[in-house]
Amino acid sequence: MSQLQILDAYFAENREKHLEELSEFLRIPSISSLSEHKQNIQTAAEWLADELRELNIENVSVDQTAGHPVVYGEWLHAEGKPTILFYGHYDVQPVDPLHLWESEPFNPVIRDNKLFARGASDDKGQVFMHLKMIEALFATEGTLPVNVKFIYEGEEEIGSPNLPAYVEEHKTKLAADLILISDTGLYAPGKPAVCYGLRGLTGVQIDVRGAKGDLHSGLYGGGVQNAIHALADILASFRDEHGTIQVEGFYDKVLPLSEEERQAYRELNFDEAALKQEIEVIELFGEEGFSYLEQTWARPTLEINGVFGGFSGEGIKTVLPAEAGAKITCRLVPDQDPNEIVELLKAHIDKHKPKGVEVTVSEFDKGAPFLTPFDHPLIQAAGRSYERIYNVPTAFTRGGGSIPIVAAFDEILSLPVVLMGFGLNSENFHAPNEHFHLENFDKGLRVLGDYLYEVSNLKF
Amino acid sequence: MSQLQILDAYFAENREKHLEELSEFLRIPSISSLSEHKQNIQTAAEWLADELRELNIENVSVDQTAGHPVVYGEWLHAEGKPTILFYGHYDVQPVDPLHLWESEPFNPVIRDNKLFARGASDDKGQVFMHLKMIEALFATEGTLPVNVKFIYEGEEEIGSPNLPAYVEEHKTKLAADLILISDTGLYAPGKPAVCYGLRGLTGVQIDVRGAKGDLHSGLYGGGVQNAIHALADILASFRDEHGTIQVEGFYDKVLPLSEEERQAYRELNFDEAALKQEIEVIELFGEEGFSYLEQTWARPTLEINGVFGGFSGEGIKTVLPAEAGAKITCRLVPDQDPNEIVELLKAHIDKHKPKGVEVTVSEFDKGAPFLTPFDHPLIQAAGRSYERIYNVPTAFTRGGGSIPIVAAFDEILSLPVVLMGFGLNSENFHAPNEHFHLENFDKGLRVLGDYLYEVSNLKF
Repeated sequence: MSQLQILDAYFAENREKHLEELSEFLRIPSISSLSEHKQNIQTAAEWLADELRELNIENVSVDQTAGHPVVYGEWLHAEGKPTILFYGHYDVQPVDPLHLWESEPFNPVIRDNKLFARGASDDKGQVFMHLKMIEALFATEGTLPVNVKFIYEGEEEIGSPNLPAYVEEHKTKLAADLILISDTGLYAPGKPAVCYGLRGLTGVQIDVRGAKGDLHSGLYGGGVQNAIHALADILASFRDEHGTIQVEGFYDKVLPLSEEERQAYRELNFDEAALKQEIEVIELFGEEGFSYLEQTWARPTLEINGVFGGFSGEGIKTVLPAEAGAKITCRLVPDQDPNEIVELLKAHIDKHKPKGVEVTVSEFDKGAPFLTPFDHPLIQAAGRSYERIYNVPTAFTRGGGSIPIVAAFDEILSLPVVLMGFGLNSENFHAPNEHFHLENFDKGLRVLGDYLYEVSNLKF
Repeated sequence: MSQLQILDAYFAENREKHLEELSEFLRIPSISSLSEHKQNIQTAAEWLADELRELNIENVSVDQTAGHPVVYGEWLHAEGKPTILFYGHYDVQPVDPLHLWESEPFNPVIRDNKLFARGASDDKGQVFMHLKMIEALFATEGTLPVNVKFIYEGEEEIGSPNLPAYVEEHKTKLAADLILISDTGLYAPGKPAVCYGLRGLTGVQIDVRGAKGDLHSGLYGGGVQNAIHALADILASFRDEHGTIQVEGFYDKVLPLSEEERQAYRELNFDEAALKQEIEVIELFGEEGFSYLEQTWARPTLEINGVFGGFSGEGIKTVLPAEAGAKITCRLVPDQDPNEIVELLKAHIDKHKPKGVEVTVSEFDKGAPFLTPFDHPLIQAAGRSYERIYNVPTAFTRGGGSIPIVAAFDEILSLPVVLMGFGLNSENFHAPNEHFHLENFDKGLRVLGDYLYEVSNLKF
């Protein structure tokens, strides 16, 4: 029997027990955003720590932070072998509106080979897979092919406010060769994905001020600058009609897509017609010269998130508005630097400032983009592990959004990040009736086991 | 003694009595917008009708409408002479905040040769001047040099909802050679003005719709049109950097300013520095090639009155907004047609519609611009009458705003409109401590008397 066959047999034999254990974990209502669940968060952390201890994981601790605790553990006896740092989170989203749940959010039930419960997919189910994969390896081989460390947080759903400081403080303890995160999803049912990049974020608010107050558009109109018109001029200047951002230097540090990456995206045969139907737009629109996937995964954006000024009630008020404002965020890609981009935005706004108004620009929080190169051996190995179990080519994807903690890991620990997730977009994370397709639970356990062997034998 | 000297003596002799009568009129709290004052409105109308009857005016009536009554009267015995239709309003604005009044709004008092009371200047004081001028002419000459008709309404401060229908219905009865309105002001203290034009108004709301709902700017950003960005593109397209409106055909029907008019405006030596200081702008901005007065009096505008879309709360929400909207109004000048302009706006918006969104345009109420030609004999005669009494050149002005009822008179009766007002911008119309400079009450009576002789002798 191959190692994979041995693992397979173990998982099959223990499936019912594993699902019962997972259900126990899911029964703990560890909602991080609601203070009345503080004790449940603590209970979930201790449940995890106990699990790690049962698996022979060493130096297990529940480390208090300014918020909810971080659970840590390690096993470092695979001499000469790489070290994988596993990350996940044991906190969950709130459950309201409760009446839309078909079964109780904290009373897991299996229907149609799907496990329904808050956290089933995001992220307790996926964290649990790390543990059971370790259990299986110990049970079948008596050892692990690599060194492992675990860091599980209880604040992901509230923006990980305390994790960066924790990681910074425990930099040495957390040193590893890669960080493996299971908190994302497959590309589509039956089609696994390795996400090797995420966009960063930066943003500004633009405030335009004209006269000391709104003026009568009859008395002053035509002779005094209109704050909204001035703002519209600035906003329109950011982009040309081809969707190309006109901020000088904006694209200078953007890593071009390699032909291999573009080819990999093309092979996904992304269904634009289905997307149009889903979001109900008459046509898609983005930067000319790039496909939809390229636009949303590998190209930076400048998005106006909000605009306000003057009278917005019903009917008409013939005011010449004195103030107007807009909120703007840019999704960034490697190697754009959020701080540099903000400076470019400011210079652009300054250059395009219309007459007769004052313009102030204030900055929002920033997050760096992240990319583990497409051709990195750890990325390609992850693809092979998926492919071996799912029997279809792995999709190599990037995420258009940001996972702030990924960027933080990338920045603080300077490790290759490998995102191996097993969820599906249809699984209602953050919504009623969250569930986890157990087919991906079963396959994912095997993918993770296989990946540990892959990493064990890799030169990188 | 000249006719003017005779009038002068009459007004001087009866000044105290006249002011006491005016105070009686001002004591009636004829606030048109508040239903509890409905009886006071009626009382004021009857007070006016009684006054007219005492002056030998004939066919006096208090005509009920769907709202507050219209007071009518006529005297048509100046055979072969022109007929002047006098217009004014006997309703007033509310008085709150009451605590800011230095004396009670409906208890007129004279301080420093100013009469303080709600309606003193807007418009009871000016209506009263019509009456006393008639009284003086009858008293001194036993007759009038022209035929006169009077129409005084009680709904001007609530937008004259019923007057256009009344005028339409009584078209024949109201037929005249000109309409004389005293509800405007001098150009500056000591500097009289004849306002010979007002701008019209038209407007649209633009609603932009992208996807079926707001999207996550990370997942979709870069590949789906942003409704606010699309709207900003439309808004910015309306105007170039010189303040010139880019809507095709927008200026086609604009009557050019004559060299005489431009010269008349230049001679007013408008103080732009004082304006900048007053409204607190760093610089003025308007259509290139025109002075501030020309821009606000004689050039059309396209003003964005309000804009909305996406997230406008504190901080940031990384949303890709599905909806955005703006409210736009244009101030129009002769001979622009509000309906035509709306069509041009629609065509422009259609032409500049960005990809990936749907745009709907809805119309607001419209008002036509009005102009009695600068060189019209009735306008120039009014200037002469002012000049004779004030001993300075009359300012020939236009108003940047709209007085809907003026446009309605212009449209329904097709009469030259002469705006001869005696208020001052500093007199707190619509605000606490409204007052009327009695210097202009005294002079105005003489100007009006003089004007009747001017009109009597005019060929037009």
